[in-house]
Amino acid sequence: MITLNQHRQLFSEHITHYQNLLNTKTPKELYEPENYILSLGGKRIRPLLALISCDLFGKSASLALNSALCVELFHNFSLIHDDILDKAPLRRNKPTVHTKWNTNIAILSGDVMLVKAFEILQHYSSEEFILLSKVFSKTAIEVCEGQQMDMNFENSLTVTVNEYIGMITNKTAVLLACSLQMGAINAGAKNEDQDHIYEFGKHLGIAFQLLDDMLDAFATNKEQFGKQTGGDIISNKKTFLLIKAFELADEKQKKELNQLLLLTEKNVEEKISGVLKLYKEIGVKTLCEKEASHHTDIALSHLMKINANSEKKNELKLFTEQLLKREV
Amino acid sequence: MITLNQHRQLFSEHITHYQNLLNTKTPKELYEPENYILSLGGKRIRPLLALISCDLFGKSASLALNSALCVELFHNFSLIHDDILDKAPLRRNKPTVHTKWNTNIAILSGDVMLVKAFEILQHYSSEEFILLSKVFSKTAIEVCEGQQMDMNFENSLTVTVNEYIGMITNKTAVLLACSLQMGAINAGAKNEDQDHIYEFGKHLGIAFQLLDDMLDAFATNKEQFGKQTGGDIISNKKTFLLIKAFELADEKQKKELNQLLLLTEKNVEEKISGVLKLYKEIGVKTLCEKEASHHTDIALSHLMKINANSEKKNELKLFTEQLLKREV
Repeated sequence: MITLNQHRQLFSEHITHYQNLLNTKTPKELYEPENYILSLGGKRIRPLLALISCDLFGKSASLALNSALCVELFHNFSLIHDDILDKAPLRRNKPTVHTKWNTNIAILSGDVMLVKAFEILQHYSSEEFILLSKVFSKTAIEVCEGQQMDMNFENSLTVTVNEYIGMITNKTAVLLACSLQMGAINAGAKNEDQDHIYEFGKHLGIAFQLLDDMLDAFATNKEQFGKQTGGDIISNKKTFLLIKAFELADEKQKKELNQLLLLTEKNVEEKISGVLKLYKEIGVKTLCEKEASHHTDIALSHLMKINANSEKKNELKLFTEQLLKREV
Repeated sequence: MITLNQHRQLFSEHITHYQNLLNTKTPKELYEPENYILSLGGKRIRPLLALISCDLFGKSASLALNSALCVELFHNFSLIHDDILDKAPLRRNKPTVHTKWNTNIAILSGDVMLVKAFEILQHYSSEEFILLSKVFSKTAIEVCEGQQMDMNFENSLTVTVNEYIGMITNKTAVLLACSLQMGAINAGAKNEDQDHIYEFGKHLGIAFQLLDDMLDAFATNKEQFGKQTGGDIISNKKTFLLIKAFELADEKQKKELNQLLLLTEKNVEEKISGVLKLYKEIGVKTLCEKEASHHTDIALSHLMKINANSEKKNELKLFTEQLLKREV
């Protein structure tokens, strides 16, 4: 049985080899940002999912290495472009690409990474290549749609919980699902099993994002969460918590919430503590946990239906639990 | 024999069908810009080349319709992103995407067009798909590299003619070459013939860009050129003309040229007429024409070597001449 650390090591060697090749390429202004963002690390969740999935369906995880690289390149391309859109100065505590270089270089080096995500799949046979490309391009389009929906929500007065779940499905969940399906394709898994592993990943992704929203508001352990808490509250981000709070608040609470949203950077502490108090009063923390559990249950029900070695299925279940607890 | 107008009509129907589908997609902020830029028209040179090439190798041009759409989508994606990089307010006399909407929407709708350029090729068989993807992704990367080289040249004091030809090869010529090769792949042409049609397109593209530089400086007929002349001179763009002028100028002319480059928007007329006078004195207009002819000759020598119906080869030669004279 291959351990998670062995998967991690396998992918680390593969991406290091890829990055060494990048160093030889010109014009360097185009490839240095790519190398930079890949070197910032991150948890490599998407590539790990591709390798785990290939292993789950009984084939050597190494067969999924280029699928794993594809989804990691795409994820990092999306980070470069999203950081421009969000005007974010920092990513993993380091300057973002458009801050370290400039916006033009960030646009262009992101573009070339997107092309390379497709190109890397050409190492597979033509039959595998078209199957992988189909799920990957569908997913890539959905991720762009999710990002646009997220931008639209900023200017929208009424976002429903369903619309929010739809947005995080596209923006976050489908790429996890795609990573798993690509690993399954590399293993030659049956269509039915591919569908189940995809749905498993999608609902896992939704649960992951809901818990991320919750940690952003309530995490006491910064190291576990990896970033400052309260960011969503400060920026009035329409998360599950805020949307649900408005949905369930009585008139007095609604008025109070609206007044808190008007507070600016001068009153950050007051804003955060006020909103958190209302979240607890209205009970949205529990509701968010319940919604996340609901999606975790759906995810696991799909995992159960997969035809694969039950020990390996248990391993994936364990990985899922660690991921949701931010222990990966 | 299929005429150019029939090819044009064939592609027009195909892209109209594609655009009608776009109208049904959401979020509309992501797809309206794509529809907008495709509706601005343009000469559709790249898709026409794909259709002509497929026809040249003895197969129905309709087989190349999705290759044609792929290169047209990619070309328009690159226009959206390049216009952001260049801070261009207008494209074909209409507001650019980032001006009409905003930069965020322009980045994201460009990204999704790039993905769709790959996706459209999935309509082919797996064997054809991987062949088309390989030439297309190689080309897409080269185009990004060419754009980065062009940006680097703005801040570089010494650009050589060779470096300049390398830049326009990547930025402009290889996409024409790729369009022709993709049409050849759709027709099942031999590798040797694919190489010749690619080289034909590449050198045609270099000649086209050199003549474009010349028209930007010397065109008297605005309608023929399609844009205001003198733009390159006003912005001190390092074209073949300027690079060669500095290379051949004597000390007095060099000093004069340097002074003219310092003139700003207040002295546009003086700047343009002064630079043109020096270009004529130094003889770079003739040299640019000679360089373009040289590449046209190489292009035609590759066309001669192709195994195909000579009547059709003659048609392509005629199209080439019209294209270079801006009569297409």
